[in-house]
Amino acid sequence: MAPSAPASQQRMRQHNLSLLLHILAEDGPASRAALATRTGLTRAGVSTLTEELIRAGLLVELGRDRPGRVGRPGSALGLAETGLCGLGGEVGVDRIAVCAMDLRGRVRIRHEAASANRASAPGPVLARLREMAEAVAAEAAQCGLRPAGLAVAVPALVRRGTSTVVHAPNLGWQHTDVAAYLGGELPLTVDNEANFGALAHLWRSGEPAPEAQGRPGRAPRTDRSSFTSRASRGQVAGSGDSAAAAGAPDGSSLRDFLHVSAAAGIGAAVIQDGRLVRGRHGFAGELGHVPVYPSGPRCACGGRGCLEQYAGEPALLRAAGLDGRPAEAAPSGEGRGAALVPLARRAQEGHPAARSALRSAGRAFGIALAGAVNLLDPETVVLGGSLAPLSSWLLPPMEAELRRRTAAPGEAPAVVPSPLGTDGPLLGAAHSVVRAALADPLGYVAAANGRA
Amino acid sequence: MAPSAPASQQRMRQHNLSLLLHILAEDGPASRAALATRTGLTRAGVSTLTEELIRAGLLVELGRDRPGRVGRPGSALGLAETGLCGLGGEVGVDRIAVCAMDLRGRVRIRHEAASANRASAPGPVLARLREMAEAVAAEAAQCGLRPAGLAVAVPALVRRGTSTVVHAPNLGWQHTDVAAYLGGELPLTVDNEANFGALAHLWRSGEPAPEAQGRPGRAPRTDRSSFTSRASRGQVAGSGDSAAAAGAPDGSSLRDFLHVSAAAGIGAAVIQDGRLVRGRHGFAGELGHVPVYPSGPRCACGGRGCLEQYAGEPALLRAAGLDGRPAEAAPSGEGRGAALVPLARRAQEGHPAARSALRSAGRAFGIALAGAVNLLDPETVVLGGSLAPLSSWLLPPMEAELRRRTAAPGEAPAVVPSPLGTDGPLLGAAHSVVRAALADPLGYVAAANGRA
Repeated sequence: MAPSAPASQQRMRQHNLSLLLHILAEDGPASRAALATRTGLTRAGVSTLTEELIRAGLLVELGRDRPGRVGRPGSALGLAETGLCGLGGEVGVDRIAVCAMDLRGRVRIRHEAASANRASAPGPVLARLREMAEAVAAEAAQCGLRPAGLAVAVPALVRRGTSTVVHAPNLGWQHTDVAAYLGGELPLTVDNEANFGALAHLWRSGEPAPEAQGRPGRAPRTDRSSFTSRASRGQVAGSGDSAAAAGAPDGSSLRDFLHVSAAAGIGAAVIQDGRLVRGRHGFAGELGHVPVYPSGPRCACGGRGCLEQYAGEPALLRAAGLDGRPAEAAPSGEGRGAALVPLARRAQEGHPAARSALRSAGRAFGIALAGAVNLLDPETVVLGGSLAPLSSWLLPPMEAELRRRTAAPGEAPAVVPSPLGTDGPLLGAAHSVVRAALADPLGYVAAANGRA
Repeated sequence: MAPSAPASQQRMRQHNLSLLLHILAEDGPASRAALATRTGLTRAGVSTLTEELIRAGLLVELGRDRPGRVGRPGSALGLAETGLCGLGGEVGVDRIAVCAMDLRGRVRIRHEAASANRASAPGPVLARLREMAEAVAAEAAQCGLRPAGLAVAVPALVRRGTSTVVHAPNLGWQHTDVAAYLGGELPLTVDNEANFGALAHLWRSGEPAPEAQGRPGRAPRTDRSSFTSRASRGQVAGSGDSAAAAGAPDGSSLRDFLHVSAAAGIGAAVIQDGRLVRGRHGFAGELGHVPVYPSGPRCACGGRGCLEQYAGEPALLRAAGLDGRPAEAAPSGEGRGAALVPLARRAQEGHPAARSALRSAGRAFGIALAGAVNLLDPETVVLGGSLAPLSSWLLPPMEAELRRRTAAPGEAPAVVPSPLGTDGPLLGAAHSVVRAALADPLGYVAAANGRA
């Protein structure tokens, strides 16, 4: 335990309210008795706390656990599917998207539009995002959902603790305060898309909690092959960007990974002990600018031979002989990663230049990742974003370099394509709003008590 | 807040006891009234808790704050300088050392002996360490100190949560369980020397708390140039290897840094948000095996062109024309970093090969660090260990590469030599035992209550 403020009755209540919400978010519906067993709280304590959460509209009674048993203790509680929701937004190079996610982590509404944002002015782009967010909020209201906040993913360096884009090379934005353009009443968070993509993976965003959540007939969750079990029991997810205060001693269960989030550029995010590593200014994760061949081509960042010079979208297309064909290379309206579709087609057809470009990119990736792996010792490297569909060509040379260059003998991490595809940043953004509400329910509880 | 277990009266008490101890450790002696103001606890609460800590021998009354005032509230409390202490041990390539550190963070006893541990068998080396630890514990007992535990720093990959050295290339140890050799009753922790070195820097080990700690005439601490203020007020140090649960939003105050800890090999450790980044297996921080020139010389790790091939001790000596002169290169009995003394002398004298070797090593360091900086965005890079005395030659080329290759414009971190020199790992090891005792005082309090 790392004390940062005195424990008090009020903080204890806050802690326990949040604990109950997170258990229900992670494990699905449970009876009061099961919650008492799971937490170590008394049955009476659980009853009082859950009553407050029901009054605040965060929890609902789902009816009896088993028809044969009588009385409230057997009645399952679950997170509400109306009431609060999180709004997530994304400004990509070629699209804008907004979604609303309910407390159960399900996407309920989703709007997306192609948008040529490369070298754009922030004003019109963010005006479109605001309109889309308002439209999604209006639809959400019709489902009985009201946004607790809005989080926006951008392909940019965002100064930590602010809503300011310091530098977005592919949008062409510099020192842009997103809050100033978006306005509005909702609490706003702005972060790098790679960070939200990694958090989506950590939180398994878009995948509802395991049990039936009140709807009969759903099978319990079975672990997917690339997902080991989420977090050991007793380790529950917390606020903002961390999954648990105390890590499993062996760091197990997908709590230490490197998440690569390639779009027009190559971003990444580091999750360690279930927490996002942000860095001093919030600029951590710039895998695209790790030097690979230090005397290589000059990069826009001022360096030479950065990973983006070998595995970034323009470099890949150029090496494959596909640059200068914008019509084929970037068909409009196909959304994220569309520019790489022709490359995948050619590689599939066995086109030598395409295959060779992917092999070189995979090797460069492997060299940059070897440095990252030696520094960070992740359990897994997750390949998300627009490069994920190219995994079958990128992975073999990447893994070969990783195996050769990982210092700890026999301990090279697995590289797995992200199951979230290109949707990670949008899902992670929406989920971050939901997680923040679950971590800090006291305001909602107090408001309900005020109404009572 | 990240809930991981229910809050209860018992945990609340534990939390608050630990909070008081950490405030006294960070800020020095304080009156009960000051502690109440500082924590937000009631005066009565502070009185009860501090009484328990005094009975447990962790705190002492230091007498009146100001002679003019009367009564206990004005009496300053401080951490005890007798009672519990932490034992730190170090197995280096050319020495063994053990020290005892009191609760105030002061080294009270320190033994060191030259020891040729390169390519050694673990048995005799660890037998010598055990003997030294017993001798230090016996001297400590004469000062009224009893060890709460022993922590040992080794130049090795240590599997997380165990006392097993997986691989110590410079000692020649593999799969060695240090606990099995050391035996004894004391709780034992074994960790990589670079990790303990970084923690020593984080905790400012060896530097007593700022105020007088009961001895008149000492001036309050003034910040050293390379140390910005430790942690913002309200952020207090916690257990084990973290300084605070909640980070300052801008990550300020030496909570995000990369600590390079060069000895025979090049190790490093990453501190993020005041916590040590350990990685899945505990193998994070292998800066020496970050690829610099991917087609460069083959490295013992299996890779090619790793940083150690350019800036490791043997590579440096070879490049400077100083290899094959073991008598000059490694005078016995000069302790850590002795092998590099002749190199520093030659560089000082302007010897071209020495200067050129250091320039190339600095450039290679800068390239490897640029990758680390782009991934982790640290505030500072601290250069510790045996390379610190070579800073004046290494730093200029290192910083030039860093400036050129840092992706965030104008945000390259400062590189500063460690003020702890080669003693960081030993101090950090001892301090980790002290910090663990301060973070978990309940056992000592319960034992005292049992005696009462």
